[in-house]
Amino acid sequence: MSTRVVVNISELTTNDPTLGDNSPLGRLHDAAMVVDEQRVLWVGANADAPAADEWIDACDSAVIPGFVDSHTHLVFAGERSDEFEARMAGVRYDGGGITRTVEATRAAPTDLLRALSATRAAELRASGVTTMEIKSGYELTVAGESRLLDVAREFSDEVTFLGAHVVPEEYANDRDGYVELVMGEMLAACAPKARWADVFCDWGAFSVDEARAILLRAREAGLEPRLHGNQIGDIGGVALAVELDAASVDHCTYVNDLDVEALGSSNTVATLLPGAEFSTRSVYPSARRLLDARAVVALATDCNPGTSYVTSMGFVIALAVREMGMTVGEALWAATAGGARALRRDDIGHLGVGARADFVVLDAPRAAHLAYRPGGPVVRQTVLARR
Amino acid sequence: MSTRVVVNISELTTNDPTLGDNSPLGRLHDAAMVVDEQRVLWVGANADAPAADEWIDACDSAVIPGFVDSHTHLVFAGERSDEFEARMAGVRYDGGGITRTVEATRAAPTDLLRALSATRAAELRASGVTTMEIKSGYELTVAGESRLLDVAREFSDEVTFLGAHVVPEEYANDRDGYVELVMGEMLAACAPKARWADVFCDWGAFSVDEARAILLRAREAGLEPRLHGNQIGDIGGVALAVELDAASVDHCTYVNDLDVEALGSSNTVATLLPGAEFSTRSVYPSARRLLDARAVVALATDCNPGTSYVTSMGFVIALAVREMGMTVGEALWAATAGGARALRRDDIGHLGVGARADFVVLDAPRAAHLAYRPGGPVVRQTVLARR
Repeated sequence: MSTRVVVNISELTTNDPTLGDNSPLGRLHDAAMVVDEQRVLWVGANADAPAADEWIDACDSAVIPGFVDSHTHLVFAGERSDEFEARMAGVRYDGGGITRTVEATRAAPTDLLRALSATRAAELRASGVTTMEIKSGYELTVAGESRLLDVAREFSDEVTFLGAHVVPEEYANDRDGYVELVMGEMLAACAPKARWADVFCDWGAFSVDEARAILLRAREAGLEPRLHGNQIGDIGGVALAVELDAASVDHCTYVNDLDVEALGSSNTVATLLPGAEFSTRSVYPSARRLLDARAVVALATDCNPGTSYVTSMGFVIALAVREMGMTVGEALWAATAGGARALRRDDIGHLGVGARADFVVLDAPRAAHLAYRPGGPVVRQTVLARR
Repeated sequence: MSTRVVVNISELTTNDPTLGDNSPLGRLHDAAMVVDEQRVLWVGANADAPAADEWIDACDSAVIPGFVDSHTHLVFAGERSDEFEARMAGVRYDGGGITRTVEATRAAPTDLLRALSATRAAELRASGVTTMEIKSGYELTVAGESRLLDVAREFSDEVTFLGAHVVPEEYANDRDGYVELVMGEMLAACAPKARWADVFCDWGAFSVDEARAILLRAREAGLEPRLHGNQIGDIGGVALAVELDAASVDHCTYVNDLDVEALGSSNTVATLLPGAEFSTRSVYPSARRLLDARAVVALATDCNPGTSYVTSMGFVIALAVREMGMTVGEALWAATAGGARALRRDDIGHLGVGARADFVVLDAPRAAHLAYRPGGPVVRQTVLARR
């Protein structure tokens, strides 16, 4: 297998605390890194860089682990910019909300869904994302959810069954019937195609009891649980996620002290999605409070057409720093190692020896430029290991 | 002169209120536009598009006038991401502030300054900027300010002499001496190279009396006045700008009711720079209050290494909509026509017949995507008229 050496790295973030400055970021300066097509083989001082088959000159730029975007709704058709525009202007507007996306997605040929998803995946890649989780949830029928997972699997191994996204219109008067469908026929069709099951557990979506029932059944079918919780209010989503040892509970905008404490002493990651608060003009979750309680925090894009049409992890990091009290280092860690923890992966999100060779060469001497140059083109090159 | 027709424009924003929907945005749907190498020749329905020598298919995407970025400090060397990082973390840190940029810029060879400026100008172009104002202000010596203007002129005709940016360290005990230098020898060397004179009139910078003296002398030397005002506090910058009929007063973060009223009945544009508030975690100016008083509002990047390292007008528009109460339409107008007004230009910032053929093809069906997909790659192609 051929090897490559990346030289002249001004600042290398490994997220391996045994390396470099022995901080959580495991940071080296004037560094080099050797990879083969799949793994990191060596990390050290630029002056000590060994020979390799190929040579990448970082030209005194920073290198970071590839971003792990652990929460996206990438596969959808249509757009809802008019709804966004009205919301920002404070104008009442019933464009249909998520129902519109469900209708557009159901109506879209698979080739179109594939092409739209490919464009969004390419945007994420260009922003430095090397692993992206992708959820279903915009067809809400047995065949439809199954089809969305098929498309998602073309772009990622981290695929999530989200039949319990909302109750579709045709079940408006029979929500129990829909929950039965999700736990029965839909789960049976979808479980073989996904790794994860997710439920939107919040006001206006699914209750804690419904979410528990769905996720327990999904676990029996071989899927691991994760949860949308505490975005709109606090109906107990965080507590349920911790109870089920979910890999992650996502949003955490409204959490109480017990939630924070529970997250701090659990294996459930708090995944924050500030693109959603930006795009809905909501208050931001308090990352500081979660971090101070020693909860593991991840950052993700929540890419979706309704509440966070975001495909840039740099933008998410800038928001986390500006709006959520995270230091640049904490935000960088959360967008890489934090995302990996939210997917219960130890081979990604870091660049320790043996890690998957997914990394990003920045167009900047320091990774802090991701927040310092908000909205700007800070990523020069995203390098993916061979899958 | 060869002609081009742009067809299949889903949404064409002309900023010409005699066109389309007769709103300030002069908006047409299913439109086409004919340009020659310099000017807009025709705007109308796609079905009526005349033949031309060349053909651009917008593929059902939106077209907008090129952005007019009326406030940048593009020509500098060095970076200050460590200072940004410390500020965001709430850590006391004296990295030297602007003095560091002055030192780095003075020490930089002209070729390096040119290369750094070219990179930033290319980023602005890629974000849809077709006209950019560029200020001096990072050498603060006669030869140095003159050199910065020479570099700036390679990228723009809208060049601004900002010798009165701050009092440099070597004049710390002789600020009157520095003001004399700016109004005397420095102005004499720089006036032939610039269109505009600007003063940073605020706490810690130059007083209203100093700013007035400098700008009046600059006007005698043929330069038109503009002003940095009311960013840090209200020492009377807006009032001075209106008194002098300055083209624009920039920042306007802290303004009183009389300031707002004065702007509403003047020809002085209020240029808002939300990238600066984002990057310094300051309160945002109230665009709503200014617009309601019928002041003309412009949006610009303020691209600079200390307080707003922003090169994306899309990001500025997203902030204006999220944080400053502007509608998407108002923000789009402010970043195009508003910028043109802030530069007292009527040939740019719109796409009425006769306008300069500077326009942007978006990768989106509606211009609202500039705010709806914050931080994302919404610009497909920036088209510049022949200069």
